[in-house]
Amino acid sequence: MQITFLGTGAGIPTRARNVSAVALRLPQRAHYWLFDCGEGTQHQILRSSLSISQIRRIFITHLHGDHLYGLPGLLASGKLGGASGEIDIYGPANLERYLRACRETAHDGGAGEADGIRIHEVEPGTIYEDDEFTVECLPLRHRILTFGYRVREHDRRGRFLVEHAREIGIPEGPLFGRLKRGESVTLDDGRTIDSAQLCEPDERGRIFAYCTDTAFCDNAIELARDADVLIHEATFAEQDLELARRSAHSTARIAATVARNAAAHRLFLTHISPRYAQSRASQDRPLTAEDLLNEAQAVFADSQVARDFLTFNVPRRRAVEETQTGAASREQ
Amino acid sequence: MQITFLGTGAGIPTRARNVSAVALRLPQRAHYWLFDCGEGTQHQILRSSLSISQIRRIFITHLHGDHLYGLPGLLASGKLGGASGEIDIYGPANLERYLRACRETAHDGGAGEADGIRIHEVEPGTIYEDDEFTVECLPLRHRILTFGYRVREHDRRGRFLVEHAREIGIPEGPLFGRLKRGESVTLDDGRTIDSAQLCEPDERGRIFAYCTDTAFCDNAIELARDADVLIHEATFAEQDLELARRSAHSTARIAATVARNAAAHRLFLTHISPRYAQSRASQDRPLTAEDLLNEAQAVFADSQVARDFLTFNVPRRRAVEETQTGAASREQ
Repeated sequence: MQITFLGTGAGIPTRARNVSAVALRLPQRAHYWLFDCGEGTQHQILRSSLSISQIRRIFITHLHGDHLYGLPGLLASGKLGGASGEIDIYGPANLERYLRACRETAHDGGAGEADGIRIHEVEPGTIYEDDEFTVECLPLRHRILTFGYRVREHDRRGRFLVEHAREIGIPEGPLFGRLKRGESVTLDDGRTIDSAQLCEPDERGRIFAYCTDTAFCDNAIELARDADVLIHEATFAEQDLELARRSAHSTARIAATVARNAAAHRLFLTHISPRYAQSRASQDRPLTAEDLLNEAQAVFADSQVARDFLTFNVPRRRAVEETQTGAASREQ
Repeated sequence: MQITFLGTGAGIPTRARNVSAVALRLPQRAHYWLFDCGEGTQHQILRSSLSISQIRRIFITHLHGDHLYGLPGLLASGKLGGASGEIDIYGPANLERYLRACRETAHDGGAGEADGIRIHEVEPGTIYEDDEFTVECLPLRHRILTFGYRVREHDRRGRFLVEHAREIGIPEGPLFGRLKRGESVTLDDGRTIDSAQLCEPDERGRIFAYCTDTAFCDNAIELARDADVLIHEATFAEQDLELARRSAHSTARIAATVARNAAAHRLFLTHISPRYAQSRASQDRPLTAEDLLNEAQAVFADSQVARDFLTFNVPRRRAVEETQTGAASREQ
């Protein structure tokens, strides 16, 4: 499970930060999923190790341009570039209407069902599920209808130690199957064998949560519960809290509070306002992204400020028991 | 009069060439005009010496995404960035519908009349005129309704040489006015004075023509007639003529033929297909932009291949007589 930030700025692009988009690469799959698609996302993909043709699903949080305006061009380029795969797009009501209007007026023909593009209007709850992953969404608190997303990798039963089972004299056959499924078995010689003796610890599935744009919000905490990675917007610094309130955005401190209350394991701040874009403070603009980081870390230590093209491999946690030994296991 | 190419590629962006946009800065004006606005045009502006807030007019050739999809984001960013000026946008039918759909579904509110944005559906002929410039458009030959544009700077009467008039004893007053207007006057002493004796040569206005996307087209020649600068699409090389025909695009040779037939003074090839993107030929893709250049120059010597961020100052030609002395005066 690998995250690549493609756009980490708020509202308008700057030279350093494009508007919102995040790619999520899933283990053992050739394709990846995209969260939001601000203008220029396809340009960012060109500058990364990803390719448009590998996109399988796109999740749109809300219909503000800085999360959306890259979508028609990305779909058209995918088609022109010869991508023939299907793309499922998830988002709030009106997403379909927007894409249809683009298709009809701009003559691309690149966003229709005939091209394998399917658009799903999401409702709170589970919106996608396969053998390995479940995706849920819940509404956040923003000026318009906005959804946060939670991707949960299913737990994986630990590997069955076939050689060890043979060594201790368990006959091959149906007993192997029962042990693999986690049952205890009693052998003809009277021994009782516990499945745990012959299986590696279960692998706990990873959790990825994506919460932007939003003010402080209980649903964000719900989505981020025990998440391995929470990506949460932090448009503003604490001194601009009033601006955050008026525009229904978060400060870095709010994002960190969500991470802490959700017992998340790692927080990435994103959707950083251009006002903190400088690498150094100046008289007009006394704060930088470094200040947002400090404000967040005061509340939640495992905070980072995302930057465009930052890639992060989400480490696997072992069985639930082991993860409780603390930070060490999270630093793998 | 200064041209800056912001996007010179066809269809989909590449690392080297963004999709279509050209800025035209006018003399003595703080603002500039934009021709086409593919996705990422605002990003290109960020990387240039231009700013979004200086845009006064936008001319859209046609409603294909690679000429259009940057417009909603550019307008929204202009508004977010505090631009308060008016913008007039010119283009084919449905442009207004497209922008309205973006505004209504994506909640930007950045493209409405309340924000000083006016959208004009163009018809062949003169679409704009002020004291110094006239803009005309004519339909080109493409798969959908597409307009080429011609900007003509008005001729400027040469400066009246006041000191010289006094030296030769012309009394100040109404006679000065008549001489300035180009009339001949007869003095009380019987001398007849020709205006040309007391005025610098007239300054001929410059002509800028923008023809993309199009197959070979008489209207393109009409628009480019005697142009100081013709920007013409050259999506394909001659060996891909069949592709050009099928997609209603031009080869470099067609662009050069238009320039030659129009007696234009300088040609920039743009809208270059990504297939010629390499700096060197390879076995799969034997041609580069250099080949397009050679094909054009074989027909029209003053050809160049545009590249992103190329800036060109269009030199002023003097009186019509002088320009006929040939290339030397065009090299100023």
